Amino acid sequence: MTTSAGLRADAERNRRQLVEAARAVFAERGLDASLDEIARRAGVGNATLYRRFPHRCLLLAAVFVDTLGAVVDAAARALADPDPWAGFVAHITFLCELQAGNRGLADLLAARVRGSAELEALRGEAFAALTALIDRAKASGDLRADFRHEDVVLILMANAGLIDRTGATAPAAWRRQLAYVLDGLRPSAAVSAAPTAPGRRQILRAMDALAERYGYQ
Amino acid sequence: MTTSAGLRADAERNRRQLVEAARAVFAERGLDASLDEIARRAGVGNATLYRRFPHRCLLLAAVFVDTLGAVVDAAARALADPDPWAGFVAHITFLCELQAGNRGLADLLAARVRGSAELEALRGEAFAALTALIDRAKASGDLRADFRHEDVVLILMANAGLIDRTGATAPAAWRRQLAYVLDGLRPSAAVSAAPTAPGRRQILRAMDALAERYGYQ
Repeated sequence: MTTSAGLRADAERNRRQLVEAARAVFAERGLDASLDEIARRAGVGNATLYRRFPHRCLLLAAVFVDTLGAVVDAAARALADPDPWAGFVAHITFLCELQAGNRGLADLLAARVRGSAELEALRGEAFAALTALIDRAKASGDLRADFRHEDVVLILMANAGLIDRTGATAPAAWRRQLAYVLDGLRPSAAVSAAPTAPGRRQILRAMDALAERYGYQ
Repeated sequence: MTTSAGLRADAERNRRQLVEAARAVFAERGLDASLDEIARRAGVGNATLYRRFPHRCLLLAAVFVDTLGAVVDAAARALADPDPWAGFVAHITFLCELQAGNRGLADLLAARVRGSAELEALRGEAFAALTALIDRAKASGDLRADFRHEDVVLILMANAGLIDRTGATAPAAWRRQLAYVLDGLRPSAAVSAAPTAPGRRQILRAMDALAERYGYQ
């Protein structure tokens, strides 16, 4: 007879195996990775996966809450840098680097996945810190005045597309492209006004559409 | 009894229907669009499609030879512009605009599809003209000296990724991102040297890998 403590231990082991398998599979394949593959990799049945994580986004949260926490910490470190431009560059580079190392993160940073209060709260904190970094670099005259926080989403989306196309063959290519973008963000580079930025609502719609495309609604 | 002229007319009509259907389906879905969908849309059987176009790349060539011809013409017009920077910007913008309007082209401009001598010849011509535009803008001091033609591929790959993520929701977003990149390409913006560019062979491998991913080998 299995004791109740034994059942709990089994459940906990299954959960841990699922989260580790999901971590690996999301990293390799992106957020739309197949749940069947995750269950297979974890060595548990599909029914167990669905029992532990009734919604796909709960599995996502279990995998990425730590990472989004690290993003929030990195933003705080960037804000602690006395040089506003250096802080801004460090944080954007940090985000693009996360994307380059993990296809799931490449997707997650450019999509708005709902359904996990914990993920959403961390996303909100990360966004607030990013906005502070942008405002500070604009106030010091280090970042062009027409830059908007929506532009960061565009940078991350373009970066996701680039690493998706070069990750296996030219893994440092994104650094080259990012260097040009960052050089273009200096006030002295702004020879003419950039075209109007997409509005906040447009960007949110784009991020929602990606979440839906990856299977999160 | 069907005459031989009648058979030829049928074959020609089928071919035309297939090319028109492929044009629409590639534009909407990208180069890896399903051949079944193309045959269905053309109102012909799969067997007819495979008889007319035994290799996927022959269908691709039938659809895109005209467009690649237009790219070569656009590069010639850009070279005719007496202002080297204006010509360079016009041509890069033209390429990104083509990508924004057509998912198949977004893929095609960043992949190296083999198997059609005609497409390959046009690609070679387009590449030669692009190199001339780059060399001229560097020689006049309008384009930063560390820019390389491989960088154009990175710009097009990032653009393809961005329009794939924003095309339906924020269709002008790519212009904003491109403006930052172009501003970053001016010699005055080059505050520090950009990270080393991926080598030509790396970029070709990336372009080959994309052709393979889309189903062309």
